[in-house]
Amino acid sequence: MKKVTSIILLALMIFPLITVAQSFPEGTFPNEHNLDGAQWPRVDAEGNTYFSVFAPYAKKVQISFRGPMTREADGYWTYVSPEPEAVGFHYYQLIIDSVNVADPATKSYYGMSKWVSAIEIPEGLPYDKTQNVPHGEIRMKRYWSEMTQTWRMSYVYTPPQYDQNNDERYPVLYLQHGGGEDETGWVFQGRMGDIMDNLIAEGKAVPMIVVMDRGYARLPGSEPMGRFDDQRMNAFLAGATPPAAPPAAPTAQRPAPPAPPFRFLSIFPELLVKEIVPMIDAAYRTKTDRESRAMAGLSMGGMHTFQVVMPNLDKFAYLGGFSGGAGGVDQIDTMYNGIFNNPQQFNQQIKLMFLSIGSGERPERVKAFAEALQAKGLKNVVYYESEGSAHEWLTWRRSLREFAPLLFQDVQK
Amino acid sequence: MKKVTSIILLALMIFPLITVAQSFPEGTFPNEHNLDGAQWPRVDAEGNTYFSVFAPYAKKVQISFRGPMTREADGYWTYVSPEPEAVGFHYYQLIIDSVNVADPATKSYYGMSKWVSAIEIPEGLPYDKTQNVPHGEIRMKRYWSEMTQTWRMSYVYTPPQYDQNNDERYPVLYLQHGGGEDETGWVFQGRMGDIMDNLIAEGKAVPMIVVMDRGYARLPGSEPMGRFDDQRMNAFLAGATPPAAPPAAPTAQRPAPPAPPFRFLSIFPELLVKEIVPMIDAAYRTKTDRESRAMAGLSMGGMHTFQVVMPNLDKFAYLGGFSGGAGGVDQIDTMYNGIFNNPQQFNQQIKLMFLSIGSGERPERVKAFAEALQAKGLKNVVYYESEGSAHEWLTWRRSLREFAPLLFQDVQK
Repeated sequence: MKKVTSIILLALMIFPLITVAQSFPEGTFPNEHNLDGAQWPRVDAEGNTYFSVFAPYAKKVQISFRGPMTREADGYWTYVSPEPEAVGFHYYQLIIDSVNVADPATKSYYGMSKWVSAIEIPEGLPYDKTQNVPHGEIRMKRYWSEMTQTWRMSYVYTPPQYDQNNDERYPVLYLQHGGGEDETGWVFQGRMGDIMDNLIAEGKAVPMIVVMDRGYARLPGSEPMGRFDDQRMNAFLAGATPPAAPPAAPTAQRPAPPAPPFRFLSIFPELLVKEIVPMIDAAYRTKTDRESRAMAGLSMGGMHTFQVVMPNLDKFAYLGGFSGGAGGVDQIDTMYNGIFNNPQQFNQQIKLMFLSIGSGERPERVKAFAEALQAKGLKNVVYYESEGSAHEWLTWRRSLREFAPLLFQDVQK
Repeated sequence: MKKVTSIILLALMIFPLITVAQSFPEGTFPNEHNLDGAQWPRVDAEGNTYFSVFAPYAKKVQISFRGPMTREADGYWTYVSPEPEAVGFHYYQLIIDSVNVADPATKSYYGMSKWVSAIEIPEGLPYDKTQNVPHGEIRMKRYWSEMTQTWRMSYVYTPPQYDQNNDERYPVLYLQHGGGEDETGWVFQGRMGDIMDNLIAEGKAVPMIVVMDRGYARLPGSEPMGRFDDQRMNAFLAGATPPAAPPAAPTAQRPAPPAPPFRFLSIFPELLVKEIVPMIDAAYRTKTDRESRAMAGLSMGGMHTFQVVMPNLDKFAYLGGFSGGAGGVDQIDTMYNGIFNNPQQFNQQIKLMFLSIGSGERPERVKAFAEALQAKGLKNVVYYESEGSAHEWLTWRRSLREFAPLLFQDVQK
């Protein structure tokens, strides 16, 4: 790889070439997910986004979920949002002559079932930032899974002083990502380490262990999930069969995809109960009673949370569904063996059922579900609505900030 | 992001559409760095590589460091290596109409100063694979740096049983990545966790803590390193100023870049001695004597290793330069205050000076340097040549496998 080395070194040499060409719209600043020194994409205080990509030989360049870019005379393609975007963290890809790829100017995150880019409209609050407080560690914990016959990885947050307090045992929160993400989602996109460190330092949350695992698991020999093939997706959505000869680049915006049946092929909920919980209790100084164990997750992870906790109330006493996991009001009387019609049992067994959603993702259904539960006299149902945020990580960072302080408080008294 | 959710779900629905179109050259198997279920790129037992990218609207698609791809009638672009590639881990990018990007079919790794793809010609040995042995943990350790006025992250490997043996203290290896990489390089590209777990399980290496940090550090207010801008690089190398109107895609191969002056703007070596070592000794159960502390690194990290260890022999007794850090034979008499001319001092102070390099990256200079040192009566100089591998991670995984067993053996006796 001498070429690589030479090219990296050359990059240092041509740095002036890069900077000279740049000029920035007033009031804009680099996206916080850009690589060190990368000036584009940018955002402004109002939440507008600004993209600039050098692609002189491309016929068409787009930013996913946004309009087409404009080709400038100097070979750059530019896009400015027509109006401010929703506050928070947005996944995106570049689409270069119909090929969807991560923007090389940003860090990559695992989401949308692949490694993609992110642009963030900053909320400007400190709760999810690294502050001068004691910091826990996030540990990569390798373990063997008998059910799947694979080596798997858990990311495990241990609170500050875990290594010093060798006689102390801690309650455990199992915290899950959403569809198309993995065990790294809460660590990087979700900033759970900083959120927990800050809550614990403020005395709002009790020190706890947080376990993040991969919500995908399949039996040996079963098929992997289908890969998300953007290029075929684009052709599919454009109604195009791949042309025999290169055609002109497609001009139309992609129509909204039809809604397919909701299904996830995963034995994860069973795996968590049978293998992950015992593995964690053996490897870490955990409290193992039901009132010292909680689970929460976002979107698909919220669904997994209800699938795990409701049939296993002997093992869990707290649960949270962030933008997922709630049912419909019409199902209330029949769900989970009718427990919602038994306030005495519910109030005695469930210390917290937390339901949250962003105001930007049609919250009505979840809110109605939470209110219907409360109307039945279920005491520990909490509803949280994240103002102005969508089905994205800002909604879920805020949900963790609101959820974690409600956990394990009696246990400590 | 309801769109994202819908699109992910849609992906499941159109999975058949994806699989039907695939057919595979005989004897090939998916690259081990592909995403779960991704069938391309592929490799075969001889070390040939096979790429296939769906890009019906692109004018030209290339695989970096390789020839142009061929456009097939169905909208796929294909490339097959004309001859077997070097064994091991190769970074690569797709180049789509002159835009360099990561291949969305693979995992992304931080290298080449950005998130890029990898294809690997498997060596087929178990030493760097996850095996049924006790596993250590790799911990993300956040710390504040006074010198840079920034929060930084160390990745810290703690050996198996670290949490159980609360009275035991461990020697420490500081292990550095190369240019354009970061503290995650040894964890993911380098597989150091599996390598150390396996060596320790076999009794070849003593249990040790391994600290991996980011070799880039700058004083507050100083400029970030220039970003590696492939698109401008391509225009630069093609001698092209960005055209006013879209030109035909470039046809010529990129000429080899001229060699610029070698420079890295980093205060990392000083930072490691003044801040990282004390932070690690405070946070973990380390042995703090010089004979319990080692440092090694690859390429730029090898240079950092010599910059750190040679002036600080009161703090370190072992060092390793993997594809980097060795000097020229002509400098031997003057380097490091002439210590190479003082066998008595060298043999007493330096328990190990390990120099390694791949046979595929012109090893002559490093080998001559090592032999010249040995010829001077320096006892603890070890030279290792990695057969058939280049300036890439396979050379460095093997180097760690050879280096780690030579560390701290007396200490344990």
